[in-house]
Amino acid sequence: MKHIVLASTSTLYGEAYLAYLQPVMKTLFAGVTEIIFVPFARPGGISHDEYTAKAAAAFAPLQIQVKGLHTFSDPVAAIGAAQGFFTGGGNTFLLVKELLERGLMAPLKAAVEAGRPYMGCSAGSNIGGVSMQTTNDMPIVHPPGFETMGLVPFNLNPHYLDPIPDLPHMGETRETRIREFHTQHATPVVGLREGGWIVVAGDNITLEGTPTARIFEAGKAPYEVDPGSSLNFLR
Amino acid sequence: MKHIVLASTSTLYGEAYLAYLQPVMKTLFAGVTEIIFVPFARPGGISHDEYTAKAAAAFAPLQIQVKGLHTFSDPVAAIGAAQGFFTGGGNTFLLVKELLERGLMAPLKAAVEAGRPYMGCSAGSNIGGVSMQTTNDMPIVHPPGFETMGLVPFNLNPHYLDPIPDLPHMGETRETRIREFHTQHATPVVGLREGGWIVVAGDNITLEGTPTARIFEAGKAPYEVDPGSSLNFLR
Repeated sequence: MKHIVLASTSTLYGEAYLAYLQPVMKTLFAGVTEIIFVPFARPGGISHDEYTAKAAAAFAPLQIQVKGLHTFSDPVAAIGAAQGFFTGGGNTFLLVKELLERGLMAPLKAAVEAGRPYMGCSAGSNIGGVSMQTTNDMPIVHPPGFETMGLVPFNLNPHYLDPIPDLPHMGETRETRIREFHTQHATPVVGLREGGWIVVAGDNITLEGTPTARIFEAGKAPYEVDPGSSLNFLR
Repeated sequence: MKHIVLASTSTLYGEAYLAYLQPVMKTLFAGVTEIIFVPFARPGGISHDEYTAKAAAAFAPLQIQVKGLHTFSDPVAAIGAAQGFFTGGGNTFLLVKELLERGLMAPLKAAVEAGRPYMGCSAGSNIGGVSMQTTNDMPIVHPPGFETMGLVPFNLNPHYLDPIPDLPHMGETRETRIREFHTQHATPVVGLREGGWIVVAGDNITLEGTPTARIFEAGKAPYEVDPGSSLNFLR
């Protein structure tokens, strides 16, 4: 049975790193004493070690040890043996390039589908979708492909942002960009606002958190779903 | 001698397509009777034919005919014989994938470096830079590489947007994203606000238009340059 949390953001405005997710983490990782942290998205260019230390500090109150995936001499074996996983945000292109080139995307997917708990934030949530093709990040490196784990049968757009009213700016809105994705793909997209997260428990997928989410299906007008709603219909 | 215009946007708020650029086009394409339009960025999924018709309407007041690059049976020969070029905006990943996979990026670069006038807007300006890696677009398709024409020795970020004041949103700002680019590359980046464009005349590169541009160099604090300034120092 799958146990997955895909969150829009790690940090709410004015709060500490992962503060709002502490109750969610407590439930998701109940009984777990150690997890593997995937640090490859490197927000702001932070080092793998620094990023792992930041994650470790946020898991310390739960008495959960955190080890960086970059520290294992045999990371595939480490993934196979891990009790659970957390992938932090940052640049999705960096994250996907590292996971694909190191041959770690498929083992991670297999471990999570076998029931090991997984939490992702932002870029770490993007890779839970079918592809990373609805990321907001700049393509600062060239991954060999854009396919991700497909833990849910749709894509995510984390940090979903509504158009800013009265802004005389002609660059594409987030909604316009997601519509452009749908000129090439039929995969549904969940625009996940900050403070929202998706919970996968076995075959059930639910939207949780405070804000509504904006759903984009190819050929349909976008619409809102309320927290607590099932997303099982999206595929 | 190179004759190039790289504009932030095709359209200013409340104005018609290419309206504010008409005087610039008149100068750049003086003596030209026909240009090739590169329609591959397909904003909003518009067809190549529809997009070419839109460009043709904007060049009609200048008595310049417009032919879509997609209509030629031998596009490499067509590029070699063309009097000038315009590449429209849209999705940079789509644009670069088509140009690279059809083998047209290098011929286009060669023709422009040989002195044929080139204008780009938005995605069409991105490909004038060293790489497309500071685009704002979503990776809706996977190009075989991110290298572009390098008509100027820096990258562009079109539709550059300052942080919105008081927005309690934790997604990365444009500036943060460009700084992440600089964790991987040393190429300078010009944040080109709407209403600004870059003119290349031989070896001289100048910022033109109304707004200042924000310059990002690796390892330096970002700074502003005024319209009319030379950008020859950036490399």
